[in-house]
Amino acid sequence: MTRYNISLIRGDGIGPEQAEAAKKILETISDKSSSTKFTISEVDAGDSALAKQGKALPESSVDTIKKSQACLKGPVGESAADVIIVLRRMFDLYANVRPAKSYPNIPSLSDKVDLVTVRENTEDVYLGWEFNADENTVVALRVTSERASRRIAEYAFKTATLRNSKRRVVAVHKANVLRKGDGLFAATCREVAKKYPKIQYSELYVDACSMNLIRNPEEFDVIVTTNLFGDILSDEAAQVVGGLGMGPAANIGDSFALFEPVHGAAFDIAGKNAANPSSILLSAKMMLEWLGDRHGDKDVIMEGKRIEDSIVGALKKGSKTKDIGGRLSTTEFTELVAKSM
Amino acid sequence: MTRYNISLIRGDGIGPEQAEAAKKILETISDKSSSTKFTISEVDAGDSALAKQGKALPESSVDTIKKSQACLKGPVGESAADVIIVLRRMFDLYANVRPAKSYPNIPSLSDKVDLVTVRENTEDVYLGWEFNADENTVVALRVTSERASRRIAEYAFKTATLRNSKRRVVAVHKANVLRKGDGLFAATCREVAKKYPKIQYSELYVDACSMNLIRNPEEFDVIVTTNLFGDILSDEAAQVVGGLGMGPAANIGDSFALFEPVHGAAFDIAGKNAANPSSILLSAKMMLEWLGDRHGDKDVIMEGKRIEDSIVGALKKGSKTKDIGGRLSTTEFTELVAKSM
Ligand SMILES: CC(C)[C@H](C(=O)O)[C@@H](O)C(=O)O
Ligand SMILES: CC(C)[C@H](C(=O)O)[C@@H](O)C(=O)O
Repeated sequence: MTRYNISLIRGDGIGPEQAEAAKKILETISDKSSSTKFTISEVDAGDSALAKQGKALPESSVDTIKKSQACLKGPVGESAADVIIVLRRMFDLYANVRPAKSYPNIPSLSDKVDLVTVRENTEDVYLGWEFNADENTVVALRVTSERASRRIAEYAFKTATLRNSKRRVVAVHKANVLRKGDGLFAATCREVAKKYPKIQYSELYVDACSMNLIRNPEEFDVIVTTNLFGDILSDEAAQVVGGLGMGPAANIGDSFALFEPVHGAAFDIAGKNAANPSSILLSAKMMLEWLGDRHGDKDVIMEGKRIEDSIVGALKKGSKTKDIGGRLSTTEFTELVAKSM
Repeated sequence: MTRYNISLIRGDGIGPEQAEAAKKILETISDKSSSTKFTISEVDAGDSALAKQGKALPESSVDTIKKSQACLKGPVGESAADVIIVLRRMFDLYANVRPAKSYPNIPSLSDKVDLVTVRENTEDVYLGWEFNADENTVVALRVTSERASRRIAEYAFKTATLRNSKRRVVAVHKANVLRKGDGLFAATCREVAKKYPKIQYSELYVDACSMNLIRNPEEFDVIVTTNLFGDILSDEAAQVVGGLGMGPAANIGDSFALFEPVHGAAFDIAGKNAANPSSILLSAKMMLEWLGDRHGDKDVIMEGKRIEDSIVGALKKGSKTKDIGGRLSTTEFTELVAKSM
């Protein structure tokens, strides 16, 4: 029997409702499985923490997260950047992995989309280095290093190899304008590509990519790109397959990882039992896969697969939350998923 | 009778074929109209100029462009940045205006899209200021000034006022990460908004915008944004309404303007008489509008309107080029448009 310590950030807006759904599913696994158990430590972070404790990411929360083996996070509101960017940097979570997939009975621009954005997660403009050149002019530094480019490229090619799907990696950049910075990123991707002769490698300018994600999304397999482009393109890709309600993300480092929905706090539907829990449940699935890989534990990987299978099963029967044209509440959909696990 | 001197950059790939189409239409106007005449000076720029003359933008071309009242430009190949970024800066063409509109009989995510991206066109990372922090690290400077933000915001609100359509401006930025830079941009837009109480003002993060362009494109009217975000979002918007074959752009300064398709050189279909000339013809339409506004000449504005009307007329009858599901060649479609003008 393996027991995993998971820290759970409740977040803001629909965050707490999603966190509740994730807890329910993890507890269901703990109950039903004899080999996999979870200890869940809930932590405060975000607007609510800021209001209550004066800090969006209180020390005590960081301590609890540090003691856990992985972190699952609900969306955070206005203070999102103060939570997620800090955590990504603190744990050196260098790969932001965002699958976008057509699911049954969900309106999608194509029913054959199965891609993943592998977004560099540590540099670009996310270092927050901004200066006033004069009173009325700001200069922000956009940083690109060979080291960060190489490890994200490696991650992307490994992902393409493991997915064993279309076996394609496309590096997305703007090296015609950012000649040195994205030039370095592109050259590094090209170099890493040589080590993976079985993976078909190509490049696209970010503007062309934003078109092609609409024109032929089913052509993509793995997209590797820099931080801010990855932010934009992964949101776009999520919408291509029917919306952020289904979009999970993994922030992966060498010794820790954090999982969260791609979307934000959605205050407009908060507290109404209307959120789609799929994005956090699919994030939990990614977490179980990561834990399993890391601990050589096939059982927990299987439990992750069961989460996705249950969601797909529900969707096939037309059981859906409102955001994707169904009638179920957050808790009803979660119940359904839990029951069929 | 008013005679306008137009410089015409032929460009690369499908550029020369598109330039030919534009010439044909401008000549048709010269022939048919008693009040509007064009003198067209063709100039070399791009890959072909680089190969022939050793420079992507030869001095002689710049001289001719400087002597003209407006420039119409076909797409350029690999050396695109060396042509267009230089020209934008040389003439201080600070507003990049890119309409995206649903046209009849063209597959679009929605048949009610009518938006325009007003992209800041002079700063951001487009200054090309990149440095090696060390051998393996590049720092690019992303510049945001109050002056450039203000004049693009002013341009956007004026555009929303003149369009008299949904009367909305949305400022798109990433001020949660680029707190100072995009913070300045957003604050400036907010300030300008106060001068236009009849225009509804809102803001969106760039990642959310890239989603919403797919989810509810018909909600947008005027999008005002920084340079690189505008590059990405305007390509996306063009694809939302069925592809870049229809997408025109205007690069507008206080005393000069340059008009060009949004798309690139499309080498794969070059020389096959297969390109859609609409993007350059609609760019020509924007040029005639700009000339008319500037010279108080209603006739030339009317001729511009005729270009679009002829294109729409052809589309309504199902007469289309291959990129949008039709069977007509570049020259056949151009003939049709010319005939009905
Ligand atoms: C909240 C924000 C800082 C964050 C980002 O830009 O990375 C979010 O958009 C995301 O994609 O996780
Ligand atoms: C060619 C390139 C430098 C250019 C840009 O990024 O501005 C192009 O993509 C455009 O949008 O006009």
